[in-house]
Amino acid sequence: MRPDDANIAGNVHGGTILKMIEEAGAIISTRHCNSQAGEPCVAALARVERTDFLSPMCIGEVANVSAEITYTSRHSVEVQVNVMSENILTGAKKVTNKATLWYVPLSLKNVNKVVEVPPIQYARKEQEDEGKKRYEEQKLDRLETKQRNGDVILPVINPEPHTVSYSQSSLIHLVGPSDCTLLGFVHGGVTMKLMDEVAGIVAARHCKTNIVTASVDAINFHEKIKKGCVITVSGRMTFTSNKSMEIEVFVDADPFVDEPRERYRAVSAFFTYVSLSKEGKPLPVPQLLTETEDEKRRFEEGKGRYLQTKAKRQAQMQQAAQQ
Amino acid sequence: MRPDDANIAGNVHGGTILKMIEEAGAIISTRHCNSQAGEPCVAALARVERTDFLSPMCIGEVANVSAEITYTSRHSVEVQVNVMSENILTGAKKVTNKATLWYVPLSLKNVNKVVEVPPIQYARKEQEDEGKKRYEEQKLDRLETKQRNGDVILPVINPEPHTVSYSQSSLIHLVGPSDCTLLGFVHGGVTMKLMDEVAGIVAARHCKTNIVTASVDAINFHEKIKKGCVITVSGRMTFTSNKSMEIEVFVDADPFVDEPRERYRAVSAFFTYVSLSKEGKPLPVPQLLTETEDEKRRFEEGKGRYLQTKAKRQAQMQQAAQQ
Amino acid sequence: MRPDDANIAGNVHGGTILKMIEEAGAIISTRHCNSQAGEPCVAALARVERTDFLSPMCIGEVANVSAEITYTSRHSVEVQVNVMSENILTGAKKVTNKATLWYVPLSLKNVNKVVEVPPIQYARKEQEDEGKKRYEEQKLDRLETKQRNGDVILPVINPEPHTVSYSQSSLIHLVGPSDCTLLGFVHGGVTMKLMDEVAGIVAARHCKTNIVTASVDAINFHEKIKKGCVITVSGRMTFTSNKSMEIEVFVDADPFVDEPRERYRAVSAFFTYVSLSKEGKPLPVPQLLTETEDEKRRFEEGKGRYLQTKAKRQAQMQQAAQQ
Repeated sequence: MRPDDANIAGNVHGGTILKMIEEAGAIISTRHCNSQAGEPCVAALARVERTDFLSPMCIGEVANVSAEITYTSRHSVEVQVNVMSENILTGAKKVTNKATLWYVPLSLKNVNKVVEVPPIQYARKEQEDEGKKRYEEQKLDRLETKQRNGDVILPVINPEPHTVSYSQSSLIHLVGPSDCTLLGFVHGGVTMKLMDEVAGIVAARHCKTNIVTASVDAINFHEKIKKGCVITVSGRMTFTSNKSMEIEVFVDADPFVDEPRERYRAVSAFFTYVSLSKEGKPLPVPQLLTETEDEKRRFEEGKGRYLQTKAKRQAQMQQAAQQ
Repeated sequence: MRPDDANIAGNVHGGTILKMIEEAGAIISTRHCNSQAGEPCVAALARVERTDFLSPMCIGEVANVSAEITYTSRHSVEVQVNVMSENILTGAKKVTNKATLWYVPLSLKNVNKVVEVPPIQYARKEQEDEGKKRYEEQKLDRLETKQRNGDVILPVINPEPHTVSYSQSSLIHLVGPSDCTLLGFVHGGVTMKLMDEVAGIVAARHCKTNIVTASVDAINFHEKIKKGCVITVSGRMTFTSNKSMEIEVFVDADPFVDEPRERYRAVSAFFTYVSLSKEGKPLPVPQLLTETEDEKRRFEEGKGRYLQTKAKRQAQMQQAAQQ
Repeated sequence: MRPDDANIAGNVHGGTILKMIEEAGAIISTRHCNSQAGEPCVAALARVERTDFLSPMCIGEVANVSAEITYTSRHSVEVQVNVMSENILTGAKKVTNKATLWYVPLSLKNVNKVVEVPPIQYARKEQEDEGKKRYEEQKLDRLETKQRNGDVILPVINPEPHTVSYSQSSLIHLVGPSDCTLLGFVHGGVTMKLMDEVAGIVAARHCKTNIVTASVDAINFHEKIKKGCVITVSGRMTFTSNKSMEIEVFVDADPFVDEPRERYRAVSAFFTYVSLSKEGKPLPVPQLLTETEDEKRRFEEGKGRYLQTKAKRQAQMQQAAQQ
């Protein structure tokens, strides 16, 4: 991990870690999908499941990324990626991240054609059944999120501190060749890195302290983004608890040269950030001031997600304690 | 702004800011030129007007870049870009740069064809007249600078300190895919970043202190630079005042593989640098020792530009004080 | 040299220097091979001779890279590259590296065709004879190393500290457009940078201190690596002396999408590292524990190379003292 991968406090950006995770996932699933004599293809990221950043990674540490294919449907691959940070001077290792990604193999000759995935062998029958269950769940969730895509973030003049408008942010990026796969589409990891960058700016503007990514909700890649597009990545705060902030991030693509197409929503996700003191301890977060009806509704929805995650985590801890 | 964008003292390189400005300008003008059902095209940078670096930008700050189209001729677009630095911890914002850029739209199918620019609507008739005046002025200036293109910078053995030869510098760069636009030509911003890099080395060699870009004179892009070229960026000091240094920078392209063409001058410009103490205060600059007739002539020409800029700035301040 | 080019102690990575050397070599040899009206071509790196890192380069210093063609055979070019570090604040300059590289020109139209090299003029007949001798020697050495290519590095569970398995490391990298030449093959410099990265991780894992590249043995590029490949770079320690570590690095390529080809060994080399205290003084290195017969054999081979280099250096010093 190099200085450019980290914030001023020396913590590696969540986006940098997401980018590494996605590269590992893309490699293993592309390799698998080309393992049998079929049509040559490249795996495109379709979805990343909710993931927690369990411990910080620092400049000078080595990131160990390992990936495994855990399920295959006819047209998709589920990959489990684990990231560990290793301080090579002390030898200390820590799990920083566990992520589940879904890929779809696209034909190298015809990017609109999804090719068939060679099935994997399961050690036990239950593994296949559990995988199938996860497959059905993510399919449903992807359909649902696609319907929320009309929403946009517009600039506001002279907003008050701690309002949604005050911290909302956006950046534009011209998609160059080095952002793209062999098929000429943006790597999922590049997109997630930009999303984390915008979410981080929103969080820092709100609480004016050092902030780090705590978790990312499921990220759905609705549509591919082609080389030469301009992408607008925009973020706004939706919810604050005592010690965390939830930021909604949209990625919109403008195919502004080649095609006569309109701007479209390519990706959307929720990022959760925490505020840290100089010693790395969690700080209280100023409460978000909601002004409009929409902002109040989104705050309640965010609260729902927050409570649900909290309950799930407590259940897991109890389960772990009983074992 | 990341560590790699800045010098050892933490000040972001002028070249990094120029690169962002150009990216914003290229996006807005390409989008505008494709806004009507015409031939798909990409905007290529033709010229950047003289621009001052008004206040420094530092590592960890967020750069806010906004762009607006202020004039269109039949075949060119004028873009005004403003850059603000924002310290997201304190919330402090400062204008760091205001720049005016001229773009020419080139057809995606035939890179040698300039397509027509859709006209913009002006709020007031005077805006169009003023824009037309600026258009004519830059056209004339571009013609003039093109004629000065025969000059080259050659290495000198064992030069004395504070002479022109002592600090002159050059670098070569192989133009790769990630430096280029969709048309396979180098982004104007990439070129300007390299020019600032060389100018900064010349300035540091001369005064052996921490230095920052203070302003850049009009930059004219005489010719496109194609992927696969080797470019030689060379700089020499032309003039020193008590507290500033002027450096002339040339960009020469060698189309060394594909084409049988000779080396040609692609871009040229004057950069002005100031020397700073560790506390960030301007330091006196050692006077440039001129040896040859050409060096003395260029020193006088530099002095002319320096006095002209100084007079113009004083006039603006008086005007501002009267309002 | 920027923060990203260096390790935590501020020393520029050997890999960054190797990358610059290779870029200079590729430019000068491509330019030479296209200097006569023949088939357009791009020079591909075939081999780098053994090279020492004579003194460290630091962040903020300027690297001066100069290159010269010293020999041409019918189908290859020998380039001598010198690197100097310059502290532009004090003006101090030091030689950091002298390297000899061999390039082969490949046709732009048919990447499998090696084109003819225009002969250079020698100032003295002996220069040609000495060049021819170096040419024959490297040709022989390339043939020999190609035969050692079956060896692989496999992960080991729970290894003991200071064993070979304990520090062995590998990384994978997806070859993107910005890693490649005009012909769509990975730049030799990009490969060497990754090799140095892995070797550095192996060295740091073994001795848990700040480490720097001291020298690199001859690097042979057995085969080209194409865009879209996944490369696995793996390293293991082979030998330790009192104050140095030798690490063997392999680069294997998986042409996993386009072609039905098997994984192949593309490059291999030995890197030598030293361990430094915080004050930059050499530290003793823990002895490598060899477990298997192969490890013991490789240790003895490494010792042979170490003693040979030591003897050669002493002979050179005596020769220099006598002159």
